[in-house]
Amino acid sequence: MMTLGNLGEHEAIARLSAMLGTPGDVLVGVGDDCAVCALSGTGNNQLFTTDPVVEGVHFLPSDDPVRVGNKAVGRVLSDIAAMGGCPQWILVNVVAPPEVEFGRIERIYEGMIALCNRFGATIIGGDLAKGASLELHLFGTGLVPAGNALLRSGARVGDAVFVTGSLGGSLAGKHLDFVPRVDEGVFLRETGVVHAMMDISDGLATDLRHILAQSGVGASLQGESIPSNGSLEQAIYDGEDFELLLTVAEGDSDLLQARWRARFETPLSKVGAITGETGVLRLDGQVLKSKAYEHYRRP
Amino acid sequence: MMTLGNLGEHEAIARLSAMLGTPGDVLVGVGDDCAVCALSGTGNNQLFTTDPVVEGVHFLPSDDPVRVGNKAVGRVLSDIAAMGGCPQWILVNVVAPPEVEFGRIERIYEGMIALCNRFGATIIGGDLAKGASLELHLFGTGLVPAGNALLRSGARVGDAVFVTGSLGGSLAGKHLDFVPRVDEGVFLRETGVVHAMMDISDGLATDLRHILAQSGVGASLQGESIPSNGSLEQAIYDGEDFELLLTVAEGDSDLLQARWRARFETPLSKVGAITGETGVLRLDGQVLKSKAYEHYRRP
Repeated sequence: MMTLGNLGEHEAIARLSAMLGTPGDVLVGVGDDCAVCALSGTGNNQLFTTDPVVEGVHFLPSDDPVRVGNKAVGRVLSDIAAMGGCPQWILVNVVAPPEVEFGRIERIYEGMIALCNRFGATIIGGDLAKGASLELHLFGTGLVPAGNALLRSGARVGDAVFVTGSLGGSLAGKHLDFVPRVDEGVFLRETGVVHAMMDISDGLATDLRHILAQSGVGASLQGESIPSNGSLEQAIYDGEDFELLLTVAEGDSDLLQARWRARFETPLSKVGAITGETGVLRLDGQVLKSKAYEHYRRP
Repeated sequence: MMTLGNLGEHEAIARLSAMLGTPGDVLVGVGDDCAVCALSGTGNNQLFTTDPVVEGVHFLPSDDPVRVGNKAVGRVLSDIAAMGGCPQWILVNVVAPPEVEFGRIERIYEGMIALCNRFGATIIGGDLAKGASLELHLFGTGLVPAGNALLRSGARVGDAVFVTGSLGGSLAGKHLDFVPRVDEGVFLRETGVVHAMMDISDGLATDLRHILAQSGVGASLQGESIPSNGSLEQAIYDGEDFELLLTVAEGDSDLLQARWRARFETPLSKVGAITGETGVLRLDGQVLKSKAYEHYRRP
């Protein structure tokens, strides 16, 4: 018998995705940070994403509920930011056992609403159901000018690879407090020079592989260029950074960084280059093996 | 300490909803079957809804997974039908323990996809996370011509009250196999004579009270007119019917029923009238007390 545990999260998602069709008005289906759909009659495409936030998996029972709410909305907004989109609507399903204190749910909502307000998102609905443990399921939409969503599939050989902020060690606290890179994502999209973008949620190495796979390219990273909150290994493998990972033509790199610095204090670091070695990721010249957090995967 | 169990589902939702703001482009927020949002540049409004489907609450471990998938999508499409809308996009979060057989998830997807295909909906994304029990969280969108969504708040004194199909006894099996009233909902909206509409998910008596509360009216039901799959009590109190409940001006009733019969085999039954006794629901003249399934409520 093939269980979810044997199969692993990514293979399970791949097999389920293969069951789905893709009609013409779905411009990008499963496999990017958001689905992208046509919104005929407007100059925009609409972005759709969903994120589960489960007690014991994404947060601990002892975590401050306001911060849990921040993380729940932050994950959704980070997905929208990763496409260069502007947040729009959010719906929230709460699952909880009857013995959960209502004040804890209210504080989670405080955290969610505060982050929504900061970035122009609005919680417009949801539902509440009884279940074994506390879970939040968030659904979010966003808007992006038609045809301008930044995808994982756009990287080109010779591009420079950039990351925002500093990577690794997020589980020490940042994973609950991070501010999604919404303003940065819109800025980067508006420059018109970004070829591919995504957010870093499973670690730089794992997420960059998604860009390589979907763009049909390889990449080479320089360890000393990677901004880390701890060791190089943490910067590459730790999850939950919620920073942006992007590629631009090498020739546009300097101008992009100059414009970035005029606008943001957060660093934008060039960490490597896109190569023609399809599917191969190198760190300081050595081929890097896959190693990532996966739901269901045994360590 | 106030727990969710003490407070009850409806009061908890009311308190959380009160924390949310409602910006101008949210035409209808929490409290109807769907949220209704402006979609500027188009002639449409966009509908948003979300439904949790939790093992042990909404289905049993022994239930056929194809039917569980049908129910999961059916609940979302029923919400959209209740506004007179056309289904559009669906996203699915799956929560499952590692020991769940992957084939079971695939069969749930088969059931979801089959019902989506029947009504022009498309699953465009979602996520998979580890958790204590099997849960599906569905998010759905729909479209309705701008300003034409059928709300719970539109009932007027003197309206006739109608229900589609036949009520009660759904937990014997129909709750997994029901076909959402999407075609019927669009037809009813297009007649232009329906004042208020919702789907019946918590039982006729409970759901009609939502229309009364939001429209500021009362209602009087005739027991012998209520189409039941069992007893009158079942027709009034059982949940999970997923039929439509609507009000139209008494003067439009006969023509509506004639047009309905020319199009559908499913019965459309006049079961009562809207009265000026604000908040009062009568059955055969007697005031009916509230009695309904609620998550967290003790029987």
